[in-house]
Amino acid sequence: MNQEGYIKGAQSIEFAQSPYLISSASVAGKKEGEGPLGKMFDMVGEDDLFGADTWEEAESTMQKEACLLSMGKAHVSPKQIRYLYGGDLLRQGIATSIGVEGLNIPMFGLYGACSTSGEALALASMSVAAGYGEYMLAVTSSHFGSAEKEFRFPLSYANQRPLSAHWTVTGSGAFLVGTRRSHVRITGVTVGKIVDYGLKDSQNMGACMAPAACDTIVRNFEDFGRKPDDYNRIVTGDLGYVGQSILFDLVTGKGYDIKKNHMDCGMTIFDQEKQDTHAGGSGCGCAAATLSAYILPKIERGEWKRVLFVPTGALMSTVSFNEGASVPGIAHAIVLEHC
Amino acid sequence: MNQEGYIKGAQSIEFAQSPYLISSASVAGKKEGEGPLGKMFDMVGEDDLFGADTWEEAESTMQKEACLLSMGKAHVSPKQIRYLYGGDLLRQGIATSIGVEGLNIPMFGLYGACSTSGEALALASMSVAAGYGEYMLAVTSSHFGSAEKEFRFPLSYANQRPLSAHWTVTGSGAFLVGTRRSHVRITGVTVGKIVDYGLKDSQNMGACMAPAACDTIVRNFEDFGRKPDDYNRIVTGDLGYVGQSILFDLVTGKGYDIKKNHMDCGMTIFDQEKQDTHAGGSGCGCAAATLSAYILPKIERGEWKRVLFVPTGALMSTVSFNEGASVPGIAHAIVLEHC
Repeated sequence: MNQEGYIKGAQSIEFAQSPYLISSASVAGKKEGEGPLGKMFDMVGEDDLFGADTWEEAESTMQKEACLLSMGKAHVSPKQIRYLYGGDLLRQGIATSIGVEGLNIPMFGLYGACSTSGEALALASMSVAAGYGEYMLAVTSSHFGSAEKEFRFPLSYANQRPLSAHWTVTGSGAFLVGTRRSHVRITGVTVGKIVDYGLKDSQNMGACMAPAACDTIVRNFEDFGRKPDDYNRIVTGDLGYVGQSILFDLVTGKGYDIKKNHMDCGMTIFDQEKQDTHAGGSGCGCAAATLSAYILPKIERGEWKRVLFVPTGALMSTVSFNEGASVPGIAHAIVLEHC
Repeated sequence: MNQEGYIKGAQSIEFAQSPYLISSASVAGKKEGEGPLGKMFDMVGEDDLFGADTWEEAESTMQKEACLLSMGKAHVSPKQIRYLYGGDLLRQGIATSIGVEGLNIPMFGLYGACSTSGEALALASMSVAAGYGEYMLAVTSSHFGSAEKEFRFPLSYANQRPLSAHWTVTGSGAFLVGTRRSHVRITGVTVGKIVDYGLKDSQNMGACMAPAACDTIVRNFEDFGRKPDDYNRIVTGDLGYVGQSILFDLVTGKGYDIKKNHMDCGMTIFDQEKQDTHAGGSGCGCAAATLSAYILPKIERGEWKRVLFVPTGALMSTVSFNEGASVPGIAHAIVLEHC
């Protein structure tokens, strides 16, 4: 316990000097631009290549643009950023490495599957609260084309997908965290454990991630001594329709009811009926772009006073899947408050 | 600037209350056990499967064993560990996810290629110095079998390798960082930038990583106002014979001479002539296992008073390589001091 943060319970930190979420930016693909949040994104690509030759380079371009836009909004230059925390879904996090390379900011590469935006925001806010720098940048991305190639089949193979499958969001979100006053503070974090119920279906990631989401959300309630009603919204990353119903069952079993104020970014970013996106959107970019475009403006305006942001990740690779390993989940929670 | 850390220069932190490196453990494969450091590892596998069915599971087993051994040496249980920082080379960091899952510790998944042990030690020590917990664990691993499959060819293909190619170390190192007194302190860190000289040869990673190593080492000298002689050893991760000669040229060009006190873990862990390991050892496990087995005991005994540990990573994937992207490098520096 010190002036920078109070250890709360088993897995959480409450910041004594809470860092501010100063600015953010979102970049999204064409399909996302046609969805319910379409007009809220800072930039929507005309096609999903963003001027690049490959899906991977396109994803890198999105990350770079999101970083530059978020810094630009706050009139901060890359040289003023102390450390960057970033990640994506691709093997060896290559979208991030190539994406942020040109910014020339000292960086920490992260991997937490679709929970990476929570991981990046946790580490960025922990670093600011500790006094390690005035400005930190957190960024994540995902891309439908690069993710299908990475985890399933190349797009040109045109495979059929079960209804429980997610649609990876083409998008990126970048967040400037620091000491400069804004209307959103990160007041605490709950770092997640890996939770494994032994599920092996990579086409049903909602079910794989729901137990981890439950674990982190309930842990957050207990560590901070809060109830579901203490949050205007409890926002998961990309559980989708299947994962949400499992989450409700699991959380109810722990004695809490979050049905009233739960929201899932994967269910918000697409119109399931019109856009044929099955279980919902997913990917590191899903929660990040939704947070930047839709959630943060509501907190800034004071419409929502306190939000628990809980991106969820399914920890798998094609190799582990083909070798018959289960798909464990992880979720990190960020407490965002209007100020 | 606060009581936890002083920002030093452009990229570094000097801890006001330096965390201790309390204990560590190393696990290595059969070939590593036959090398110059063979008798120094805590555990050497009889074969490289460590009782598992696949190389990936074997790598996970090594990580778990290294974690348990390092905690056991300090009589600390997994429940006492606040956060774990871990990573490996495999796509989606699956060796770490499966490896540390059973420990049930809140965790941050990292990716920095072979620099990941530096990244994990930096974040673990930053968290301890900030007062976020009494104990943090940092762990990384690599495995020859899983890495060849991931980056080159499955072992059964028996391909020929050029002399500039590295030999991925089968090994893992885990480090317990905390507030409890020991004979090694982490007094500072220099977080690396991505440095890209445009090289595209994945079979010559030493050349790809040397510019990043130079950048971080010279930055460390400038941020802390030190000269090469202020360190008993400047230890890079896995530049190998090719990368070392490039590093010497680059650092000399910046006005420093580190030839006298430079050591490379990749050149230390194998006997190049007898073991036919070409450019030297590599992988997240190379620097980690060498640090635990060979370097830390010397610092503990006071034989070396101050060491700069600089693991280096080549940021590439088979996809980025096949698409013709260059291989940028990154390196993070950790200042270790006898106390």
